[in-house]
Amino acid sequence: MLRRDAFALPDGVIYLDGNSLGPLPRTARAAVDKALCAEWGEMLIRGWNEAGWMDQPDRLGDRIAPLIGADAGTVTLGDTLSVRVFQGLAAALSLRPERKVILSEESNFPSDLYIAQGLIRALGQEHELRVVPASDLTAALNEEVAVLMLTEVDYRSGARHDMAALTARAHAVGALALWDLAHSAGALPVNLTGTGADFAAGCTYKYLNGGPGAPAFFYARPDHAEAVQPILAGWLGHAAPFDFAPEYTPGPGRNRFRIGTPPVLQMAALGAALDLFDGVDLAALHARAVALADRLAAGFQTACPELRRLTPGPAQHRGSQIAFAHPQGYAMVQALIAQGVIGDFRAPDILRFGIAPLYLDETDIDAAIWRFEQVIRDRLWDDPAYRTRNKVT
Amino acid sequence: MLRRDAFALPDGVIYLDGNSLGPLPRTARAAVDKALCAEWGEMLIRGWNEAGWMDQPDRLGDRIAPLIGADAGTVTLGDTLSVRVFQGLAAALSLRPERKVILSEESNFPSDLYIAQGLIRALGQEHELRVVPASDLTAALNEEVAVLMLTEVDYRSGARHDMAALTARAHAVGALALWDLAHSAGALPVNLTGTGADFAAGCTYKYLNGGPGAPAFFYARPDHAEAVQPILAGWLGHAAPFDFAPEYTPGPGRNRFRIGTPPVLQMAALGAALDLFDGVDLAALHARAVALADRLAAGFQTACPELRRLTPGPAQHRGSQIAFAHPQGYAMVQALIAQGVIGDFRAPDILRFGIAPLYLDETDIDAAIWRFEQVIRDRLWDDPAYRTRNKVT
Repeated sequence: MLRRDAFALPDGVIYLDGNSLGPLPRTARAAVDKALCAEWGEMLIRGWNEAGWMDQPDRLGDRIAPLIGADAGTVTLGDTLSVRVFQGLAAALSLRPERKVILSEESNFPSDLYIAQGLIRALGQEHELRVVPASDLTAALNEEVAVLMLTEVDYRSGARHDMAALTARAHAVGALALWDLAHSAGALPVNLTGTGADFAAGCTYKYLNGGPGAPAFFYARPDHAEAVQPILAGWLGHAAPFDFAPEYTPGPGRNRFRIGTPPVLQMAALGAALDLFDGVDLAALHARAVALADRLAAGFQTACPELRRLTPGPAQHRGSQIAFAHPQGYAMVQALIAQGVIGDFRAPDILRFGIAPLYLDETDIDAAIWRFEQVIRDRLWDDPAYRTRNKVT
Repeated sequence: MLRRDAFALPDGVIYLDGNSLGPLPRTARAAVDKALCAEWGEMLIRGWNEAGWMDQPDRLGDRIAPLIGADAGTVTLGDTLSVRVFQGLAAALSLRPERKVILSEESNFPSDLYIAQGLIRALGQEHELRVVPASDLTAALNEEVAVLMLTEVDYRSGARHDMAALTARAHAVGALALWDLAHSAGALPVNLTGTGADFAAGCTYKYLNGGPGAPAFFYARPDHAEAVQPILAGWLGHAAPFDFAPEYTPGPGRNRFRIGTPPVLQMAALGAALDLFDGVDLAALHARAVALADRLAAGFQTACPELRRLTPGPAQHRGSQIAFAHPQGYAMVQALIAQGVIGDFRAPDILRFGIAPLYLDETDIDAAIWRFEQVIRDRLWDDPAYRTRNKVT
């Protein structure tokens, strides 16, 4: 499954930050250039039909659908993940008007919490965002809860929720489940249809390698998609946008979750990136990531026993990253970056390494370990001269 | 001011649809390629800082600001125009909690009306979207009105509202004014600061030539920008997004209206497009557009006296397009397109021609007239054989 040559990775770089921004697929350049010159330049306004820009969110949605266990016709594309979470939350609350609690966990990605807080302000402060530790979620799922809002894979620790069990528990108490798949899509098998998840959204610039600012995707279970009156009722979600009728009539199914004009250049890059998932077995990909992450963890922790591993052990309980805590985590990550090993740091003390087996193998992991050993042995992160020379701040 | 060579217009095409999608600036290709290869490909995640992607919405906002009469530091960029209208409306309503009317006109661009309808659903159906004919707006501005929501230039007729007078009238009754500048930005001088407009949003893919799906811009008057608690409270609008705090704290001023990750490739194209406005006198540009539109109107109406002109006469009462009504409007536009004169049609019977003097001059207009004369003289729009051959449907 290694497709390293398909990516334009700089020489000498070991890229362990694909959980933040995936690297450039080589074919993206030609795809974007085509959209720019042969389509926009030559077709001008006709590109919306002749180049298929208007249907591109559907086509890309249908390519993402199998990666997240969704049926064709259920996933659309566009806008940012935050806007999509807003849509999912608003939709869920509209389907449970008598309930007033959004349940989430305290370590959820902050934007999801902020979006919930903003929506609650809009709805007149009658709702409550209730956040609990992950271990208390099942107990907290009661008949007050309108919607359970979770990110499947934690952006810091890499811990993975049991989507099937939590969705079932939510449904058992009459609540709905909205899943943020930011760290799932393209990293591991997701089964939206099988788990009965109600809504899901995710971004395409992490493991899907769609590029900086690539559009988000949005899934609504087909029965909900036909029932919801969207709040973000943009014209491209209208049943007949080019009738320019004064009253909003939602389009069929997923179409009603479209809002405004989709980003054609970003979609072109994303299309090229999705090609690289053709024929990829996500279960096998994830198993590889788990093994590579463990290899890295063993090497790093041997070099620096004080690293505290945050990522759970069992494969089914984690995503495709490995995270550690260390008081000097920030300086260590900076020193590693200076060595060409690109991971990232998350406050207060977390070293985070994304493992994407489409472009990483044992050789890369071993090289990362070797460079980390140097960082530790020579205290590169603690040497003022080195820090100055390498702009480690 | 003619910069035709700066655009990649196909040979023989007379492009009169820049009010829908502006043409490709030649420099956009290199700019996007740089963002793709030298930035995304080489810098990877570091592009957010090293290539300045994170600040790009601010920098582009500051370049759009002088085009719409706004001060530096007041305009941000990202998302679609529909989402931005939602933000503006929600912000305005939050500043006038005791008032329940959104006033607009019945011929406003439908997405703006849909967005208002969706927001009203979210807010519990306590608000009313009141639409009146343009001529009744002043009379309808009373103390029930929370916000006046208008598109400055009508997307069909090209008629232009008096932003200064209507904003002043809104303020006189204690209402706020939200202006949609979709057909204004890059077409004519706008004076947001001078008129005291409260909020404004617009798209960048029409007269600003930012490309298909280019991001929208958003303006909030500085005093409002500091007062509003955004509903779409995404993490990039947070005062310190990378603190990953669980509670939303709005960023300073315009920053709080950022939502999610901005579209880097689209922004690169837009940056190149904005270069072409350096040194452009918008008043002179608009005067040229008005003159060219009148030239086209005279020629078209001579060729086909049944064309009913919809666009007002006085320059200050219109944007940079000319529109006519004719029962055979659709077929005529299709026949013109087959002749390389690209305008567009809007239901039920409107022929619409955008006039952008950055890439159009008298020669183009005269050629368009000549081809239109052929269409009329030979009844090309009414000849079944021609219609079949040229795929006029």
